[in-house]
Amino acid sequence: MIQKLDRVLVVGLGLIGGSFASGIKSRSLANTVVGYDINEQECRLGVELNVIDEYSTDLLSAASEADLIMLAVPVKATEALLVQMFTVMKPTAIISDVGSTKMNIIEAAGRVFGTLPHNFIPGHPIAGAEKSGVTAANQDLFERHKVILTPLETTSVDAVKVIASLWQALGAEVLEMTPERHDEVLAATSHLPHILAFSLVDTLAHEEQNKDIFRYAAGGFRDFTRIAASDPVMWHDICHANRDAILDQIDQFTDGLSRLRTAIDQGDGQTLLGIFTRARVAREYFSTLLTGTAYELKPVVQKEANLLQKKEAG
Amino acid sequence: MIQKLDRVLVVGLGLIGGSFASGIKSRSLANTVVGYDINEQECRLGVELNVIDEYSTDLLSAASEADLIMLAVPVKATEALLVQMFTVMKPTAIISDVGSTKMNIIEAAGRVFGTLPHNFIPGHPIAGAEKSGVTAANQDLFERHKVILTPLETTSVDAVKVIASLWQALGAEVLEMTPERHDEVLAATSHLPHILAFSLVDTLAHEEQNKDIFRYAAGGFRDFTRIAASDPVMWHDICHANRDAILDQIDQFTDGLSRLRTAIDQGDGQTLLGIFTRARVAREYFSTLLTGTAYELKPVVQKEANLLQKKEAG
Repeated sequence: MIQKLDRVLVVGLGLIGGSFASGIKSRSLANTVVGYDINEQECRLGVELNVIDEYSTDLLSAASEADLIMLAVPVKATEALLVQMFTVMKPTAIISDVGSTKMNIIEAAGRVFGTLPHNFIPGHPIAGAEKSGVTAANQDLFERHKVILTPLETTSVDAVKVIASLWQALGAEVLEMTPERHDEVLAATSHLPHILAFSLVDTLAHEEQNKDIFRYAAGGFRDFTRIAASDPVMWHDICHANRDAILDQIDQFTDGLSRLRTAIDQGDGQTLLGIFTRARVAREYFSTLLTGTAYELKPVVQKEANLLQKKEAG
Repeated sequence: MIQKLDRVLVVGLGLIGGSFASGIKSRSLANTVVGYDINEQECRLGVELNVIDEYSTDLLSAASEADLIMLAVPVKATEALLVQMFTVMKPTAIISDVGSTKMNIIEAAGRVFGTLPHNFIPGHPIAGAEKSGVTAANQDLFERHKVILTPLETTSVDAVKVIASLWQALGAEVLEMTPERHDEVLAATSHLPHILAFSLVDTLAHEEQNKDIFRYAAGGFRDFTRIAASDPVMWHDICHANRDAILDQIDQFTDGLSRLRTAIDQGDGQTLLGIFTRARVAREYFSTLLTGTAYELKPVVQKEANLLQKKEAG
């Protein structure tokens, strides 16, 4: 059972912040949901669209009255805000964030406070970010999505429970892991794919003679490059914030691609089939995780796995 | 105005062959559409589903009576079939294919006939291949899709016209280019993205500790890896058939990725923003080609381009 909060402050009314605010408000999980955004027009729109109850133009005053503060701003801005909030927050208040990298926030807190404040709960809802702005806010955005929390040993267990139960009340599945593991996992499953897509599109677009190549591009390319339309500034920041884990993933990927290149070059059919089949099986497995239909797809996966085994044994 | 054909033989009743047959039949572009497939069950199903008028279990006899033969079989099988068909075909008959690589077919014809027969028109409809089998046949599959024909100088101009007008009658846009250019373009826009997706999923799935990584994967990864579920055997064959162009594209991509890696490693924000913004602009441009809404998206592209210019000038 979730304890009803009095005042929740959401800083940054983009897709994620707006959806969090709207989810809390529509489910009456707080008495008052207050919004703050550097763009006052977004705040006014937030009230109009029923995303928030009210907004403040004085960030520190709003922060001093809140029982829970959610930072939903770009990764780079979170550090400065965290520092400011902590100077004015109620001692009992809880603060959390939605940034897509976690080690950098914890390191920043370490630089300022010596350690992560016990009532700051680093978090990351894994939800799409194709749309932006408060008009895209959706009270059900987090339903059936995952939210990763990365508390340290010194983090207040009670504060973690409050944040976790809020996300659960919004329909999310809450997972806990170390911030290091979070950044590794995200580097592999989100940052690397985006970087590959950006790199592919940029490489293709680089040469003058390639301009017309896009004219012929079909399905595979389209799926692949959709994510290259993501915000360049956000990805610039992520590459900075999660540099080491991303470099490590690029290196692992480059090694794998190099093995595949060698197999193509040498006409090594067995290795090619092995890679393609393993990838297909893994992809099918991934689909079962996404759709929750593990048993329906199992025969397909099993068939492929048997095929692979036969090929490798043969 | 398209001249009505008497007998059209479609060899291979998969998604592409079945959809071609169904498109011809439903638009009455031939008096009789005959199907052939090594799996007789697919043939019977083809008649039942109205995809073809009749089927034959004697390939050479069917080929000897056809006015037009469409080979819609895996790339590797096309060469052997081409040779067989030519020994029995009417002198006035036209033959074409739908293979996703073109140089290999032309080289194979060269080995057998010394040159490409003047009435063989290599072709490639660029249409999705996620589904398979005659039950997936769709008479409108090629509407608003591109079909690339790669005739040589010795190819019959009249035969090209017949094939082109058939595809146009099915709603496709027909383009002509050299087979070399076709293979380059496809290596860049289809084969490379598929190889990157296969390689990414295989690399992630490789290590035991990564098994749970898929559990956290979100949007970017999903878009990226959808294409890794494609048929391993088909991609094995494509890697063989278009080896040189694919290796060249892998090398260009690897160079690009290496430049991006260096920029991340060195915290070179200007280069990162340049790559990400160019990719985004190119991706938006690609979207305009796909949707035909060039003017609607132009302001976005222009804004990004200005942003980039300012960043690079600054």
